[in-house]
Order: sequence, then structure tokens, then C-alpha cells
Amino acid sequence: MKILAIDTSNQPLSVAVTADDSLLAETTLTTHRKHAEFLMPVIEDLVGKAGLTPKDLDRIVVASGPGSYTGIRMATTVAKTLAATLDIELVTVSSLLALALNITKPAGLINPIFNARNQNLFTGLYQIKNGEPTPVIADQHTNITDWLADIADIDQQITIVGETAPFEAAFSQQFGDRLMVADKLAAIPDAAKIGLYGAKLTPVQDVDSVVPRYLRLTKAEADWRKEHPNEDTRHYVEKI
Amino acid sequence: MKILAIDTSNQPLSVAVTADDSLLAETTLTTHRKHAEFLMPVIEDLVGKAGLTPKDLDRIVVASGPGSYTGIRMATTVAKTLAATLDIELVTVSSLLALALNITKPAGLINPIFNARNQNLFTGLYQIKNGEPTPVIADQHTNITDWLADIADIDQQITIVGETAPFEAAFSQQFGDRLMVADKLAAIPDAAKIGLYGAKLTPVQDVDSVVPRYLRLTKAEADWRKEHPNEDTRHYVEKI
Repeated sequence: MKILAIDTSNQPLSVAVTADDSLLAETTLTTHRKHAEFLMPVIEDLVGKAGLTPKDLDRIVVASGPGSYTGIRMATTVAKTLAATLDIELVTVSSLLALALNITKPAGLINPIFNARNQNLFTGLYQIKNGEPTPVIADQHTNITDWLADIADIDQQITIVGETAPFEAAFSQQFGDRLMVADKLAAIPDAAKIGLYGAKLTPVQDVDSVVPRYLRLTKAEADWRKEHPNEDTRHYVEKI
Repeated sequence: MKILAIDTSNQPLSVAVTADDSLLAETTLTTHRKHAEFLMPVIEDLVGKAGLTPKDLDRIVVASGPGSYTGIRMATTVAKTLAATLDIELVTVSSLLALALNITKPAGLINPIFNARNQNLFTGLYQIKNGEPTPVIADQHTNITDWLADIADIDQQITIVGETAPFEAAFSQQFGDRLMVADKLAAIPDAAKIGLYGAKLTPVQDVDSVVPRYLRLTKAEADWRKEHPNEDTRHYVEKI
């Protein structure tokens, strides 16, 4: 099975072409936020370097969020467009699980983190089961105080990975020497691992129903809800 | 420090541009043996995508062998040419150590392997010291029987990584459940890790004196030596 895997959830862009359990071609960039400019040319280049044409692809695996609004919208839009145009399978992967894939031999639990500013974070808790990260606490948008309270009773080692810097002191205070901080390379999504993971996922998704996993309201929508407390929130998109 | 890291020791090609302890851009291909065709364009493309020009680079890190003759000659030639032209630093890394960098949390020793056919292999033994692979037994070209005898007294876990398939049964017989076999992705060199590792290496090397680490004679040279047992081996290159 030939797979195109895409992750542009945050600043890094990672794209890979995989075949069954092996990597054919991969490019990862961390230097640009302009995913709109780079994503399609990188995909085209990699499919060619893998010795394939788009028609050879069987499945698209996309990290659909959480992450930056623009990043996850870009990735899911490109993934859906390609899947529909080529009439091939589409599966989505949590962008937090994608980071957990980078921690190959954890001693305990894995806690991927994206910084959402103002002491907020996107996070979830994973453990390795049968060699693969499996959610223990679902991905969510929360603040560091609430999150640390939610995971206060963990008595295993915990590895944090991702945009950990703003939160390391708080984690360290709670977990002491049970805290492991993954290295900086592990904080960059690796589309090769995402492709290999996504190759086994079932069922495939209905292309039209795939949406980015924002996991929080946009600021605009939150503001609108505050100003229109009694209106059906479905009106938000129509009215703005 | 801006680094260009290159590994074309075997079929995979991996090139990365790193800055201090972070990755800027990386491409890895496993689909071609034509490194001569792909290496320079990939380097040019990545340096550009990293937002740099060649003049911004401070150091080249190259996996200089062992590996395929053509692959390590190509990598060292390109690395030396760029280092000399740009007047920047050059350091070499063992291509076996480069694979050991992919094993992040081994329980014991790491045994990277390149298949050299007919029950022969390029291999060496590494342990993690201060977070980095450190040679325990030097890289060498040997056969599986001699190698297994050399490491027979190991009583720790041992992780084999690379072109392990032809040798797994023999390792398994010797080490039983102390043997770990790294997954297929770990068998592909990761130039990002090579760049980050090479950033700290001292001293830098004299560009002119860098040569590929073949670790064995070419078949042509071995044949010539057999036919000319009494001649100075320095004549080999001149006479052929």
C-alpha cells in the first residue's frame, strides 16, 4: 500500500511517501509557516522522487489536529482534495499522537504538548500498547493547572514531548525525577512514522465528513458567542 | 552553527540542514541508488528551503563509511568539494555510528549492521555514554561467525539495527530474548541526527586528508594483491 502522509499542524511541515512498512521519500521543514506555499510543491516533488505518480497512491494519512488553525486547515484541505480527486482512501491521525510516535521506548506514559499560549496547551496522555501509542486521556485544549491536576495521580514515568519549554518547570515540580523531557528532534513530526502508523488504521473515513480537529473555538467564534448568548451557535458562520 | 549533514553510505540518501540543536530542513530517499544524480540537487534545494545560501553554512558533517563503495565515495567527494570551496569545517562520522544514533533508549548495547554479502557484514558495537553512542568494538568488515564469537560474552541486551535480516536467526540463537531487533525505519540514516551529533565533534578534519572509510579492499585490489604477492601494494593503483 502506497501512502502519502502529511503533517503541517504547527510550524514544521513533514511529508512522506511510504510503501507498506517502509519509507520511500520524506521531507521535513521547520523554517517556514507558509505551508500554503510549500505543501503542494513538496508533495509533488516527493511523489516523483519516490518513483511514483499520484495515481499510484492508495491512501492519504493526515494529521488533522489539534494545532494551528491555518496549519491543520491546510493539511486537511489538501488531503481531502487529493483523496477525492484521486479517489483513494483518507484516514486522519491526531497531531498529538503523531508526536507520541516519536517516543519509541518510553518507560511509562507519553504526554505530547502544543503550546496554546497564556498557560494553555493542547495535550493528551498516551501509553504504548502493542507497540503503538494509545490514548489514556483524550486530546484536549486546557490550561496547565487543570491538566496537572488531571494527571496528578500518575505514579509512572512520564515523557513530555513537543512545545514543552513553557511547561517544564510545572511538570518538574509535580513529577520530580519521574519526568523525562524528549529532545528537540522528537518535537518535530515525522511523516514517515505517521504514514506507517496510518497504514494499519481502519475504517477509512468518508472524505466529505473529515474536518480539522480544532478542539477549541476560534477567538472570533468565542467572541460572537459571548455577544449572542441566546442565539443558535449554528448562526455564527452565516452571520459573520 | 549551520550544518549540512550528508549520508549516502548505502541505498538511502539522507541530507539535512541543522542549526545548533535544531533541524531546519531534511530530505530522505530510499528509492534510488543514483546518488550521483540526486545528491547535489537535494542539497541545493534543502539549503534554499532552510532559508540559507551555501555561504551561510559553517560545517559539513558526512557519514564517510563503511558502506557501498560508490555511496561513501560520492558523499565524501561532495562533502570535501563543498568544504574546500566554501572554506568551512568538515567532520566525518562513522556510517555505523549514524545508525546507532537512531536507537534512542537502548536497554544495553547497539550493534549496527550493513550486509556485505556471503555471510559478511560491516559492523561495530556501541553503547550509549552521556547520551551518545560510543564504540565498544571498532567498526570492521568481518563474517557473522567471527563476529558472534567476538561478542559471545555479552550478558546485556543487544539491539541490532540496519540490514539485519540475513543475520537475525544467528543473533537470536546466540542471544535469545536478550536480542532486540530495531524497526525498519531505524535502519534508514537520519541526517538530522547526524548533523546534531556532528555539531559537537572536535577537532575538525583536514579536508584534503579525508578519505572514505572502506574498511576492506575492493575486489579488484584484492585480486591484484593475490596475483602480485611480492609487489608493493602502492603500485596497485598505478598499474591497473
